Amino acid sequence: MRRLPVAVVGATGYSGEELVRLLSRHPEVELTALVSQQHAGKRFGEVLPYLPEDLACRKLEHLTPEEIASRAKVVFLALPPGVSSRWGSVLRGSGCVVLDLGPDFRLKDPGLYPRYYGWEHPFSELLEQALYALPELRRKLIPSFDLLALPGCYPTGVLLSLVPLVEKDLVVPGSVVILGLSGVSGAGRKLEARLLFGEMVGNSYAYGFPQHRHLAEMEEELQRWGSRATGALTFIPHLVPVHRGILLTIVFQLDRPIGREECLEIYRLRYGKEPFIRIRDETPESAPQLRSVVGSNRIELAPGVDPRSGRGWVLAALDNLGKGAAGQAVQVLNLRFGWEERTGLDPYPIAFA
Amino acid sequence: MRRLPVAVVGATGYSGEELVRLLSRHPEVELTALVSQQHAGKRFGEVLPYLPEDLACRKLEHLTPEEIASRAKVVFLALPPGVSSRWGSVLRGSGCVVLDLGPDFRLKDPGLYPRYYGWEHPFSELLEQALYALPELRRKLIPSFDLLALPGCYPTGVLLSLVPLVEKDLVVPGSVVILGLSGVSGAGRKLEARLLFGEMVGNSYAYGFPQHRHLAEMEEELQRWGSRATGALTFIPHLVPVHRGILLTIVFQLDRPIGREECLEIYRLRYGKEPFIRIRDETPESAPQLRSVVGSNRIELAPGVDPRSGRGWVLAALDNLGKGAAGQAVQVLNLRFGWEERTGLDPYPIAFA
Amino acid sequence: MRRLPVAVVGATGYSGEELVRLLSRHPEVELTALVSQQHAGKRFGEVLPYLPEDLACRKLEHLTPEEIASRAKVVFLALPPGVSSRWGSVLRGSGCVVLDLGPDFRLKDPGLYPRYYGWEHPFSELLEQALYALPELRRKLIPSFDLLALPGCYPTGVLLSLVPLVEKDLVVPGSVVILGLSGVSGAGRKLEARLLFGEMVGNSYAYGFPQHRHLAEMEEELQRWGSRATGALTFIPHLVPVHRGILLTIVFQLDRPIGREECLEIYRLRYGKEPFIRIRDETPESAPQLRSVVGSNRIELAPGVDPRSGRGWVLAALDNLGKGAAGQAVQVLNLRFGWEERTGLDPYPIAFA
Amino acid sequence: MRRLPVAVVGATGYSGEELVRLLSRHPEVELTALVSQQHAGKRFGEVLPYLPEDLACRKLEHLTPEEIASRAKVVFLALPPGVSSRWGSVLRGSGCVVLDLGPDFRLKDPGLYPRYYGWEHPFSELLEQALYALPELRRKLIPSFDLLALPGCYPTGVLLSLVPLVEKDLVVPGSVVILGLSGVSGAGRKLEARLLFGEMVGNSYAYGFPQHRHLAEMEEELQRWGSRATGALTFIPHLVPVHRGILLTIVFQLDRPIGREECLEIYRLRYGKEPFIRIRDETPESAPQLRSVVGSNRIELAPGVDPRSGRGWVLAALDNLGKGAAGQAVQVLNLRFGWEERTGLDPYPIAFA
Repeated sequence: MRRLPVAVVGATGYSGEELVRLLSRHPEVELTALVSQQHAGKRFGEVLPYLPEDLACRKLEHLTPEEIASRAKVVFLALPPGVSSRWGSVLRGSGCVVLDLGPDFRLKDPGLYPRYYGWEHPFSELLEQALYALPELRRKLIPSFDLLALPGCYPTGVLLSLVPLVEKDLVVPGSVVILGLSGVSGAGRKLEARLLFGEMVGNSYAYGFPQHRHLAEMEEELQRWGSRATGALTFIPHLVPVHRGILLTIVFQLDRPIGREECLEIYRLRYGKEPFIRIRDETPESAPQLRSVVGSNRIELAPGVDPRSGRGWVLAALDNLGKGAAGQAVQVLNLRFGWEERTGLDPYPIAFA
Repeated sequence: MRRLPVAVVGATGYSGEELVRLLSRHPEVELTALVSQQHAGKRFGEVLPYLPEDLACRKLEHLTPEEIASRAKVVFLALPPGVSSRWGSVLRGSGCVVLDLGPDFRLKDPGLYPRYYGWEHPFSELLEQALYALPELRRKLIPSFDLLALPGCYPTGVLLSLVPLVEKDLVVPGSVVILGLSGVSGAGRKLEARLLFGEMVGNSYAYGFPQHRHLAEMEEELQRWGSRATGALTFIPHLVPVHRGILLTIVFQLDRPIGREECLEIYRLRYGKEPFIRIRDETPESAPQLRSVVGSNRIELAPGVDPRSGRGWVLAALDNLGKGAAGQAVQVLNLRFGWEERTGLDPYPIAFA
Repeated sequence: MRRLPVAVVGATGYSGEELVRLLSRHPEVELTALVSQQHAGKRFGEVLPYLPEDLACRKLEHLTPEEIASRAKVVFLALPPGVSSRWGSVLRGSGCVVLDLGPDFRLKDPGLYPRYYGWEHPFSELLEQALYALPELRRKLIPSFDLLALPGCYPTGVLLSLVPLVEKDLVVPGSVVILGLSGVSGAGRKLEARLLFGEMVGNSYAYGFPQHRHLAEMEEELQRWGSRATGALTFIPHLVPVHRGILLTIVFQLDRPIGREECLEIYRLRYGKEPFIRIRDETPESAPQLRSVVGSNRIELAPGVDPRSGRGWVLAALDNLGKGAAGQAVQVLNLRFGWEERTGLDPYPIAFA
Repeated sequence: MRRLPVAVVGATGYSGEELVRLLSRHPEVELTALVSQQHAGKRFGEVLPYLPEDLACRKLEHLTPEEIASRAKVVFLALPPGVSSRWGSVLRGSGCVVLDLGPDFRLKDPGLYPRYYGWEHPFSELLEQALYALPELRRKLIPSFDLLALPGCYPTGVLLSLVPLVEKDLVVPGSVVILGLSGVSGAGRKLEARLLFGEMVGNSYAYGFPQHRHLAEMEEELQRWGSRATGALTFIPHLVPVHRGILLTIVFQLDRPIGREECLEIYRLRYGKEPFIRIRDETPESAPQLRSVVGSNRIELAPGVDPRSGRGWVLAALDNLGKGAAGQAVQVLNLRFGWEERTGLDPYPIAFA
């Protein structure tokens, strides 16, 4: 049987590289184009010297959307904001299925985009054709969409953490405080002094507050799942000296007092059959850790209740390049084409490797 | 002029080692005893092979409190809970000035101790003789006490972060959420699998919640500074792969809306002359980082207001072994004996080194 | 078709854990016993909290060799020196195929063992039944042996680096200097202070010289491949702050002057078809890096000639837990049972993940 | 008494920053100019946000050599090859004492320069006025020179390691193999992808061989100390994931067999009174480690003899920014002006901090 021809645009960033790794061993697809404007003409292994030979020898190309459309049925975009919508628009016009890892098609309200990205959305007419493709919340809708907006890494963790309680109206609006820890790859493979080894080792700090771009999609999505708006989230992310991984600690007021067991049961019922979600419930102190998820498409959640304050919390761990980007994109691909959801995805975290 | 003879009990733990480093170059004191039960009889350099020669050649001794009292006028205790109060009791009876880096003399309410430490306080009658010696809050009282309880590392950061607003009743009781990030040395030099390099590198996770031992002293102290109790704090610390340093992100409801400038002004007025506190106020995004403080006795604070939610926050960075332990102990020593407060303390963070 | 039942003894060490990871997804085998004396009775996930659920739920057992033999046809031993030979002896008596990752069956000369391990070999009569199973050098012999001694991590790298030149008598006897860099997992999951995160981060040092245990097998093997003894090797390994990986820099006198191209050609001819060996020959400065190999069963070699001194060198990189231990054990298993050599082995390094 | 006015040109590189740190607390000097072309006009703290306030508030300036000469009597140059000689030439013409941390004035033979740096030396007539200022080898000459060329970081370690044996003709010419490990700061604060945290963490590799620029000065200097040329050195440096520090492992043939004790005695006699050299001789396995030296001006040496091969070795550890650059520059400053040699220099390594 013929494999589905797929292309990756933006193949040499961290997310693009991870996509290539996953797709190159996915049994149902064939990688027909690796697109990189910056490194076009080089072999992949010249840019990333640690690639195995079969990928190292492949050419990076500078292709137009039309050229890509002539080679691939499905195109993954790992591009900066404002750029991916341009590519997406042409590729959709050429009939390609587009999976966009950037933020351009995530928001439904076009008025939010300029507030967070600084310019008018260039293709806002496409927004209604796009699905915010978080598989655990939108599994059934995915097969009927051809423009799939992959959620951001932080929003993936925040939404999976909060939706089970929000849809039961258990979270007091306006009470949510989100603290994020992110590995350095979350900033992309950028040549910035603050990302040098010598600047980051032994260091940690908060960044990107008070108005991180991911807030827009978190808030817009959350308000769809409860009967009332969740209100303004306070979100303070931090950079920590690891390569990959996101840790989230989310604290909020509970609308009515519930116990730990009741809280856990809500998550077990919601996610019990999910292949990539693990509820950590061994003890009240069980905490997700980066080790458990980095290199895999898994997310770990540990919901709990503070017996002293009555506040609720959810702790979460996911890989920003896995479940937060490339892994989730492959999961969505599998759902879109009716393949087994885990096809081509790592069952094990790196740390276990 | 004769130098003051001082002793360190528990010299080979991380805090003890740092104390020895600072005291060994302090111009007013002479280190007359390095006490270690575990390593008694060895030279210091056998336990810590990277020590400079003048310290490497010194003997670690197993001494009784009485023997110590015959050699030293001031004794620093870097011992586990339950142990330091025993030493402190005898040493005080012998007339020594005691600076205890452990938690045994920090709480005023003896009923809190068993709830957090698991056993009755063995020397609760001494609690009223002890001062909770956070220099920026108790500077004037320090010279008149001989039993000085050094605050824990997290409480040092939390109290310096919150007291300026609490004493103006600006923090809504029961609304405080504290996220902590701590380097691995915060757990001490313990032989536990989770602290091995191979387990911690690339990893991060929450721990010690919901009822971390430091909560007791944070809550007991905070309620002294406002006109009403601050209520139960929600405190979730995390371990990150750095050796030293604590980052705190504290979020709370403001009792009345204030702007960023007003908020900053409160901190500038409170701490403007403090030699070891720096208010980071360059931009709304200025964040303290570990680099700025590790290896020094400094703490950096960045207070702010979330314009979207109206919540207040304080971000803080300090060195758990510096301002959070040994550095602060030396600062208290300086104040106790009327020396310039910065004597023997590093003006520069390690990162700058 | 029924899968081959296999057991792992010593499942909770770093090598054992990696073996379990690889075997648990190997399509031809079934893991029928996970043996751990230290942690018997616990679930695997209690010891290693980051394991995926299917492995986390498995019981660790304390079994006798006889009990293991009743459950498994093939047994992997990841045990300390002196211990594995005892297990190997009984298991061989019960008819099991034994793959020993420890050093007990590596040497042919029983007189060498006490010199390097400090005691008489307890089962020296078994040595002649054992094969030193380095696949690239002994591929054809592997199927006919039932007691397979896996080479040590350093020897795997040193032998693959030197044999192509040694068998052409190009290395001047007595001239070989070997520098090794090893990740911390090379020391095993031991509770030693020097292996704590706080002691190892930012640190590096030489260790285990002048007489590292791996010298015995390196020297014994090397002399089989040339027409004359290679003589005493000088081997100085270093610990560096990474979790996994070995880097080798081997320098020696060339018996006759050869150019870089001639040197490379010798390696290409020797290893050109090897699925797990990559010759890095892009430029004279091409150097293997840990990133290229960690998490995979690959080894990278970069042979070269110093134009200034006429000396030869080989640089090598491999994963001490992959090609240096568990990965190579699975490669040997595949060869022993006639399966495709790459079955169950990772094509990609972790860094690419 | 008035302090000596000094300037630093290239203040925002790693060496320049470390120089500023040391000079800013040196009791005999006053920092009168911080020169940075790239960041002129900014405050120092804008470029390096972790600086303490007294340095953070200082202006970085774009000054001509003449302007500098009007403000400072002594100028430290931390500039790239080819650039510092231009500055040095003008500054010497203006009567300043110049301490150059770059390589332009290190070689005596002007014919070597183009071979290693790729262009003709632009001011070769100045070479004979310059002293290769390695304090332990040239202490007495330093006060009479006004153009002081600081040795490179690797050469500092190699020369201090080998000279005691070379001057006794104990090292067989042409037999020296040098393996270096360097922290990432050795590459400078450059925006190169390979120096990003995400590329370097967990990684290590050899670089800069076969003809590292430091070879020229090592070989030129070494041949001055023995009665015969030491011959071509083989030098292979490696990058390891630490911020600071150099480890050297040097192996060579001994001209006549000597024992470990005799070997140690040679070093003790040569360096016994040196304030910054420590001979590690506790056991045959005593190895210098980065922890012992990083952040200080110390170098640790462990000479030894391989009883199996009769080869000699020296292991060394130093801080590339301390004894290998800025620390040594301050040591030379002290000697040049007749101050106590340790003035302003750290007695303790960072790790101990």
